[in-house]
Amino acid sequence: MKVNENFSKMPQSYLFAEVANRVKKYKEAHPDASIIRLGIGDVTLPLAPAVVQAAKRAADEMGAAETFRGYPPYEGWEFLIEAIRGYYASFGVMLNYGDIFVSDGAKSDAGDLPDIFSADNTVLVPDPVYPVYVDSNIMGGRRIIYARGCRENNFLPTPADIEGGEPDIIYICSPNNPTGAVMTREILKEWVDYANKLGAVIIFDAAYEAFISDPSLPRSIFEIPGARECAIEIGSLSKTAGFTGMRCGYTVIPEELERGGYSLNKLWMRRQSTKFNGVSYVVQRAAEAVFSPEGLLQCKKNIDYYRGNAKIIAETLDRLGIYYTGGKHSPYIWMQCPNGLGSWEFFDYLLENAGVVGTPGAGFGSAGEGYFRLTAFGSREDTAEAARRMEKLLSR
Amino acid sequence: MKVNENFSKMPQSYLFAEVANRVKKYKEAHPDASIIRLGIGDVTLPLAPAVVQAAKRAADEMGAAETFRGYPPYEGWEFLIEAIRGYYASFGVMLNYGDIFVSDGAKSDAGDLPDIFSADNTVLVPDPVYPVYVDSNIMGGRRIIYARGCRENNFLPTPADIEGGEPDIIYICSPNNPTGAVMTREILKEWVDYANKLGAVIIFDAAYEAFISDPSLPRSIFEIPGARECAIEIGSLSKTAGFTGMRCGYTVIPEELERGGYSLNKLWMRRQSTKFNGVSYVVQRAAEAVFSPEGLLQCKKNIDYYRGNAKIIAETLDRLGIYYTGGKHSPYIWMQCPNGLGSWEFFDYLLENAGVVGTPGAGFGSAGEGYFRLTAFGSREDTAEAARRMEKLLSR
Repeated sequence: MKVNENFSKMPQSYLFAEVANRVKKYKEAHPDASIIRLGIGDVTLPLAPAVVQAAKRAADEMGAAETFRGYPPYEGWEFLIEAIRGYYASFGVMLNYGDIFVSDGAKSDAGDLPDIFSADNTVLVPDPVYPVYVDSNIMGGRRIIYARGCRENNFLPTPADIEGGEPDIIYICSPNNPTGAVMTREILKEWVDYANKLGAVIIFDAAYEAFISDPSLPRSIFEIPGARECAIEIGSLSKTAGFTGMRCGYTVIPEELERGGYSLNKLWMRRQSTKFNGVSYVVQRAAEAVFSPEGLLQCKKNIDYYRGNAKIIAETLDRLGIYYTGGKHSPYIWMQCPNGLGSWEFFDYLLENAGVVGTPGAGFGSAGEGYFRLTAFGSREDTAEAARRMEKLLSR
Repeated sequence: MKVNENFSKMPQSYLFAEVANRVKKYKEAHPDASIIRLGIGDVTLPLAPAVVQAAKRAADEMGAAETFRGYPPYEGWEFLIEAIRGYYASFGVMLNYGDIFVSDGAKSDAGDLPDIFSADNTVLVPDPVYPVYVDSNIMGGRRIIYARGCRENNFLPTPADIEGGEPDIIYICSPNNPTGAVMTREILKEWVDYANKLGAVIIFDAAYEAFISDPSLPRSIFEIPGARECAIEIGSLSKTAGFTGMRCGYTVIPEELERGGYSLNKLWMRRQSTKFNGVSYVVQRAAEAVFSPEGLLQCKKNIDYYRGNAKIIAETLDRLGIYYTGGKHSPYIWMQCPNGLGSWEFFDYLLENAGVVGTPGAGFGSAGEGYFRLTAFGSREDTAEAARRMEKLLSR
């Protein structure tokens, strides 16, 4: 019996464990210190009332013989697929019914999509980046190359920034985790044209699209001409509707997307029907309610709350004259560490002198060294207090 | 860009599509015919009241700031893991907390577990069998060998029935889908000893264990000495508690299970934390309620109902003198087609002469030819009527 040796090639990430460890030590040494966490990657506001009501109604339906539902369709219930189509249509993207696959979360889809691709492909990921793209492809034995983000490209790498060869599979996350940077239509068009020229496939992670308020910025890669011929899009309700604990997302694979004579849509359907059995009816009804008029309004209120937090941090950094990306169409703020400090040096400095905890950028890839991630998912009070402390400390 | 070519090696299963097609044609030709489906693989009774109440309470918790929960732990919430431990303890199996991983269903785990194994392994599956074991391993590029079930071994193959070499990974499903045959302690002990001798790993699918009422039959492979050194067990709430539409299962990987110096428990944790983000809080609370005293009682009532259906079919076959397996500790009855008919011939004969629809055994593997699967998931009335029709037809 041989295990999958690729597991031992995956980088062990101690990022959040090391953050917790340093905070713990500091608290032990300073038991009275008031510590504010701006490193939270999870949402904190409760589900919208319309969503809760829908989940409860669905639970009741499952308890009555006339309305009970067994195995869900692999691709999702029709009511939710139609709701997702309607959501996309609201910002001008028309999808086919058959393009959409409901899932238990964007992370599952990001991790499982490589199943349909040969191990013999080269995968391009931006650096810094959400680690799942890299880890799930190392697990599958694929070669990884990078496109580096930096101050010069505003952490929005273009095909010109690719190092190490030509990719077969290209991951793009916009708004980006961890940098909060949002691709313009022009840059995204560059990537679509590049992928189509090469015959590569783009996996576009749109998990944070709901934070985009400027209509000139693309919320979906399918706003870009040519994307249906090269792109897969992953969507999430985690940040859109506070679904981190509910677990629902979706993946869009255009029916006409083909490579080597194979329909990627059909390969994914085969993958899902073999290794997955659909999403809970209760969760799908809750997700449907997210896209109802009340649901959209209630969820927008929560997003506006987080946006307000991001604005407080961004304006503080503006006043301090510190370079950052994100903060406007994203719950993340990616700031340059002041005075040339390294990511972990700044982490310690901020913790010890302001009691504020963030996430060292170096933990998201080597291009993140010298940067620091703050998030907008805390409470308004905590965020404002942390911003005051940072302003006081860093304007000295 | 190269797709995973292994997909094209997966056998296309037209089993249920072909069943639907033949039924449709028959109905068109005989619009007034009364057709009873005994091929249903999904549960039909609604969720237990305790489960519905728990789901609704959890939905309310998600809607309030004080009780909201974000990302679940990858391995599941503590309350559910403890409930599963208690359930196993109730039939004498003591598990460690760290052995248990909650999932969105047994099928996901059955499909995803191969991720932790090298493509360079030989996989043994019983024939006939639930197609997910074969398909997910072909997708991963592994060699498949078979152990044939037949009347002589009562569809309970032992290591002596293996054809084609020595396996590295061994799938066992007991009570079996589709044959309903249940492994005795002695036969299961043979497999455990065989796996330990070889260094192979057994993946034991216990999805139907709740149908076992005879305490001399093992409900878990961990009732067998030596199993913690060679076995992984997959459990499901789909049939135990009618969770096919709720989506919750679990996998047990003993903490001490190692191969080639790797802990399989740790590899699975790494796989899940990379490609999965846990199960919905609402679903986990509903699952916890299954294992509460009221929940267990209410779920047992449903299982007894299905058992009653199975008994009606089994007693009919007894009177007819037709050989079958299952029907006693399983929702499945696997009958030999009378008069030497092939699986599909008998399908047509039963449809045309009794209006009863079952599933041709040949669809579950070549060893299933000449057999036929009936299920106990219909209503009592339909099942009794179908049994009457079969008895009338086949006793001629």
